[in-house]
Amino acid sequence: MAPVLALVGATGAVGTVMIDIINHRETVPWGEIRLIASARSAGKKLTVRGEELTVIELTAEAFDGVDVAMFDVPDEISAEWAPVAAARGAVAVDNSGAFRMDDQVPLVVPEVNADKVGERPRGIIANPNCTTLSMMAALGALHREFELKELVVASYQAVSGAGKEGVDRLYAELEAVAGKPVGVSAGDVRATLESAGLSISDSPFPAPLAYNVVPSAGSYKGDGWYSEELKVRNESRKILGIPDLKVSATCVRVPVVTTHSLAVHATFAREVTVEEAHKVLEAQPTIVLVDDPENNVFPTPGDVVGEDPTYVGRVRQALDFPNTLDFFVCGDNLRKGAALNTYEIAETLAPQLG
Amino acid sequence: MAPVLALVGATGAVGTVMIDIINHRETVPWGEIRLIASARSAGKKLTVRGEELTVIELTAEAFDGVDVAMFDVPDEISAEWAPVAAARGAVAVDNSGAFRMDDQVPLVVPEVNADKVGERPRGIIANPNCTTLSMMAALGALHREFELKELVVASYQAVSGAGKEGVDRLYAELEAVAGKPVGVSAGDVRATLESAGLSISDSPFPAPLAYNVVPSAGSYKGDGWYSEELKVRNESRKILGIPDLKVSATCVRVPVVTTHSLAVHATFAREVTVEEAHKVLEAQPTIVLVDDPENNVFPTPGDVVGEDPTYVGRVRQALDFPNTLDFFVCGDNLRKGAALNTYEIAETLAPQLG
Repeated sequence: MAPVLALVGATGAVGTVMIDIINHRETVPWGEIRLIASARSAGKKLTVRGEELTVIELTAEAFDGVDVAMFDVPDEISAEWAPVAAARGAVAVDNSGAFRMDDQVPLVVPEVNADKVGERPRGIIANPNCTTLSMMAALGALHREFELKELVVASYQAVSGAGKEGVDRLYAELEAVAGKPVGVSAGDVRATLESAGLSISDSPFPAPLAYNVVPSAGSYKGDGWYSEELKVRNESRKILGIPDLKVSATCVRVPVVTTHSLAVHATFAREVTVEEAHKVLEAQPTIVLVDDPENNVFPTPGDVVGEDPTYVGRVRQALDFPNTLDFFVCGDNLRKGAALNTYEIAETLAPQLG
Repeated sequence: MAPVLALVGATGAVGTVMIDIINHRETVPWGEIRLIASARSAGKKLTVRGEELTVIELTAEAFDGVDVAMFDVPDEISAEWAPVAAARGAVAVDNSGAFRMDDQVPLVVPEVNADKVGERPRGIIANPNCTTLSMMAALGALHREFELKELVVASYQAVSGAGKEGVDRLYAELEAVAGKPVGVSAGDVRATLESAGLSISDSPFPAPLAYNVVPSAGSYKGDGWYSEELKVRNESRKILGIPDLKVSATCVRVPVVTTHSLAVHATFAREVTVEEAHKVLEAQPTIVLVDDPENNVFPTPGDVVGEDPTYVGRVRQALDFPNTLDFFVCGDNLRKGAALNTYEIAETLAPQLG
């Protein structure tokens, strides 16, 4: 019997992208797709692959008969309900941060460590943080060939990482400053936003993003580090299976709607040339190599948003660091960075279930 | 006799900032200030320290009696005219790229290597590139204490690095996209700009900057590198006097009007703690330390633009790299990054001249 797929958080931002992904798949392996959301959204009707489905309320019974339950909900909802789904016999694939660093929960990027989906003593598989995910396809492929040892990363993160509220805020800020000659004296953007009724205290971000970049992502974790930077370190180690991988990350929010970019400085155990790296990256079906800097050909978030693959460019050998590549990578944080990878994990599971 | 200062390029973008800097100095050591520009701008009247001065045309005779001639003009004008000024007896302080890597020309950041101003066999002193300059005050201070060995840098560069044309372009792009729900599918910003008459072929940048970041700065130099990235490497080595300093830089343009930011990963020969680094940075009068991430206190370009000092924050010990600090630095690329440093070199010279 074809397996049953459930989507928890079907009406949220990532859930909406998830339905779009399911609708655009050539074929799906599911006998039934069940949409689940909070009581508030239950009863809503959504079209999935030409069929109108009614969203049902999140209860334990909602998971009866479900083989794979994808969770696109906040951490605390996942923490409570993923174990419930697992207890009812489903494999929970969770896109929150609740289980990522749990030793009993594999953290999976299918093109890197699909083999881990079978090791799930808690019946839960976690989907990585979007910033980490943006570079995993590329680093996984390069690691297989050249053995990754060290990683220095600086991010250029989109506001949709902070949800719809983040996107609305950026749109409102740009509208407030457009046509005004600001960004030329300290605090003039803040003042312009204030006088448009856009106080920073109402923003999901700790500083303006109009004509600005903000070196802060996530919550403060001590010793100078924000949570997003530690996630890049800890999740990269777990996904790649390199417990002693050296990682330093600086996460910076930029005025981009969707698609995270990363400047990556990666050191390998073995020698690596640009030509060899190109070959490895080109052989990976989920990567698009966009690398002809002489003709201004490189990835930018605005040319990648809405696309499934990870785009890689600006690949070059570090001049002073042996076995080291510098490159620039762009990935849609709502697609591969969230919904798409979760769905790919579910697809990987499908043949084993049902 | 008090020395005579000349400003070549007095009517340009950096020249305008230079006059603002001179006007705001508490005292100046100059007996006379002479404004020089192209024939087109000659005759224009500008007020310097309360006195109305007439801009004179750039000729060899314009340098007669001049002790220090500051050049804020394009490379090719500097290449032609700085040697003329030197031949007439002036010390030329050049803010272009024409002489920076010339072995006979010192490359000076006064708080790092003021002692080099005396070693000028060609009568020329060069002012560094703005991206390099943004981190030099901090790195110079830290290098003196802890001995810098390696540098991995990612930049968040403002559009005014590309002159008035860059600023006008960003303003026009933001006006064209404001109020529109773009940045959500590949190329939708490009299409919006096109339909507003803002073709990319008319832009000083190779891709849109509205809702975007662009991993390209300067001209292509081969092997995957752009000129700005090589300048960061070569100029850092020369200024800091570390010929074998290991450097990898990725330079990225962001939709910020003015003030460059850099994510810096710096490895030293000696052990260094955050507390020690804070002490060193706080002791440097041209640095403002803004570093309380728990309370969202860190530098952002929007809070630094128009200010003279370099702002440093997010200082933390790299978790996996010994003797290594990660930090974030913001510096106004038109002030310390250009006009201010040039003027500070001139001030350093003043007591020796006239």
